[in-house]
Amino acid sequence: MIGEIIAIGDELTSGRTLNTTSGYAARRLFDAGHTIHAMSTIGDSPSLIGEALLQAIGRVDFIIVTGGLGATDDDLTNEAVSQALNRPTMPNLEILARIRRHLQRRQAAPDDPLEKLAWLPSGAEAFDPSSPIAGYQLVHDQTPIFFLPGVPEEMTDLLDRIVLPKLTAWQSGSGLQTCQRIYKSFGLAESEINRRIRALQLPASIKIGYYPVFPDVHVSVLIREWDTGAATKLFADACRRVETALGNAVYGRDSDELEHAVGRLLKNSGHWLAAAESCTGGLLAHRITRVPGSSCYFLGGAVAYANRLKADLVGVAPGLIERWGAVSTQVAEAMAVGIRERCQADIGIGITGIAGPEGGTPAKPVGTVFIGIAEPDGCRVTQHLFSGSRHRIQTLAAHNGLNLLRLHLQANTSGR
Amino acid sequence: MIGEIIAIGDELTSGRTLNTTSGYAARRLFDAGHTIHAMSTIGDSPSLIGEALLQAIGRVDFIIVTGGLGATDDDLTNEAVSQALNRPTMPNLEILARIRRHLQRRQAAPDDPLEKLAWLPSGAEAFDPSSPIAGYQLVHDQTPIFFLPGVPEEMTDLLDRIVLPKLTAWQSGSGLQTCQRIYKSFGLAESEINRRIRALQLPASIKIGYYPVFPDVHVSVLIREWDTGAATKLFADACRRVETALGNAVYGRDSDELEHAVGRLLKNSGHWLAAAESCTGGLLAHRITRVPGSSCYFLGGAVAYANRLKADLVGVAPGLIERWGAVSTQVAEAMAVGIRERCQADIGIGITGIAGPEGGTPAKPVGTVFIGIAEPDGCRVTQHLFSGSRHRIQTLAAHNGLNLLRLHLQANTSGR
Repeated sequence: MIGEIIAIGDELTSGRTLNTTSGYAARRLFDAGHTIHAMSTIGDSPSLIGEALLQAIGRVDFIIVTGGLGATDDDLTNEAVSQALNRPTMPNLEILARIRRHLQRRQAAPDDPLEKLAWLPSGAEAFDPSSPIAGYQLVHDQTPIFFLPGVPEEMTDLLDRIVLPKLTAWQSGSGLQTCQRIYKSFGLAESEINRRIRALQLPASIKIGYYPVFPDVHVSVLIREWDTGAATKLFADACRRVETALGNAVYGRDSDELEHAVGRLLKNSGHWLAAAESCTGGLLAHRITRVPGSSCYFLGGAVAYANRLKADLVGVAPGLIERWGAVSTQVAEAMAVGIRERCQADIGIGITGIAGPEGGTPAKPVGTVFIGIAEPDGCRVTQHLFSGSRHRIQTLAAHNGLNLLRLHLQANTSGR
Repeated sequence: MIGEIIAIGDELTSGRTLNTTSGYAARRLFDAGHTIHAMSTIGDSPSLIGEALLQAIGRVDFIIVTGGLGATDDDLTNEAVSQALNRPTMPNLEILARIRRHLQRRQAAPDDPLEKLAWLPSGAEAFDPSSPIAGYQLVHDQTPIFFLPGVPEEMTDLLDRIVLPKLTAWQSGSGLQTCQRIYKSFGLAESEINRRIRALQLPASIKIGYYPVFPDVHVSVLIREWDTGAATKLFADACRRVETALGNAVYGRDSDELEHAVGRLLKNSGHWLAAAESCTGGLLAHRITRVPGSSCYFLGGAVAYANRLKADLVGVAPGLIERWGAVSTQVAEAMAVGIRERCQADIGIGITGIAGPEGGTPAKPVGTVFIGIAEPDGCRVTQHLFSGSRHRIQTLAAHNGLNLLRLHLQANTSGR
């Protein structure tokens, strides 16, 4: 089915809040085999909301509207729907009774704005009357319209739990088959990836997309066919060839992140990791510990931001810092080796650099970063020069640190 | 002026990539006094691109189009514009010459896809012919249309550096005055904030917006008036009253983040901070060190993820962990006190908890977090129970840690 997503809120059109829910909905709908015709974002204005809704009703099979369902004065979606579709708002008695019980317990004033939550356009079917802002469905001119809260966690939960199954039920069994895989790569430029994939001369039904998602490039391999058997075969073949063409620049697929790839390699090899970070200030450790189960391969480490802590917590000889400077091959090596020993880890990583905006010198400008990786046989240090903001330099330093760990682990465990 | 933003890319309508550029553009345009009528996102389809463009030309004063300008095969914006506006593509000779020089140096094939970048719809005025995908401007039916790359860094740079000044020049001096301030708050529910602000009975021309931006609530105070003097006075008065009503739940304004507030308080009080983190895995240290200049008040600390490191790096007595468990008031206190002493800091923070999804027990379920803050006079530990995913629990633990530091510093320095 073809759908449209309408997000409502002045906080979105003024750029105050980033619209993340539309993208999530698009992704989930796409994966379920639907096509999104358009996504629009409009302010809390009843006339604009009505206009967008009427236009969408004429051209797509279903509509998802997010935002503007709350109790504050700037939540105007229900009024707008009521006017545009000529459906007066009526109280949903179950929701109203629940709100009144809640207000009584709190001994609130009788005209509390919360009561507004119970008034829905006529014909609205609340998804869950036990929750006041749980959203509702309307069917207008044979078009199902789903109204969901704008708060990302509530919206994504309802979309997955209620809207997607309802759409599947609505759709009368179309047999369109969609296969998609995203290869996530780091280290090759988008143009180089494009060149390598063009050279494969893949069949026309395979659609390739290139998405630079800083600091990675994502490559999408997609097929949409009515004939399931042929599609599956073509798709598997295309994936194999793309994978070969991109080599070890690919670190994962679909929802994989670089820290997942590193985690898998550590887990499979049975190696324990420890980290000593200076300019990244804990970002590498944070990324590793975002992954559930990371306590099975990550011991911890130090954020040795001040030079004194590089000595006290990591065991870097103070003479090294005096002689070579805190941002140097020697100190990166001492950090990696030192944290490995202090934590009794198998692998130690040390990162030291100048994230800026202050602290650069002609010999070591802002963006200079040294990354050391220590293992029982020794330590290898690489030097990098990143450009851009402090945030960008910190992101690139942590990302390169993770990628160096990945390549190190791949090289050392591939023979097993 | 009233504008519209159109973002192009299958990666956006399939939800593969989050559209961040439209929100950025909306914010910057809003701050410059413009109003965004609508923002739409459409796929790489020439017919949809043309339709959206023609519709926008009829109803707004300016249009910003992002994405689809690159050299890969799925970049179709220029073809779509050419068809929809009946403007055949022509090579921009300056860009073409530059690309050919570049290709010669690289000894690439003569039909390299990069040459595509030089072919623009007729009438297009390239912003910067020395850069191949720098974007361009068209004026169609008296409507200026700005075409910008979809890559966020390139897009935001061009918007700020070229598009905003061009729009200002285009606009014939309207005198509409916009004042807006965002108060960023943590710790009060949106409904409670709404209740407090309603009670102020602010003048009708003051527009208040409530934006839950997890885990904060942002409150926008806005006025748009033709009479500059009156607007400024009304606005200042409303801000003062909102600020008083929200009290110390407000940690900052506009682009402030919680870590900026903590950083300012540390800097002003001359206190040095050190952190020992377990379940947050470095997230608190990372957030503090995101702020430029944080090396003037943050020493560093330990990511004591494994219990052994809580003893070795932070000095927690192993007996404490055996007796009370790693997630306990006692260990949070020992971590805060221990890291303060090891790092010779003025203030130590210790965070220990169960981020999940594994590791919970009936007595200490997933989401249990203890946060200790140690100073020369002693240590205070608070216990929290957060719900949701691992990511959510880690985010809330670090955010509460920062907020506790803020409240501690505010209480201890307010009397000075």
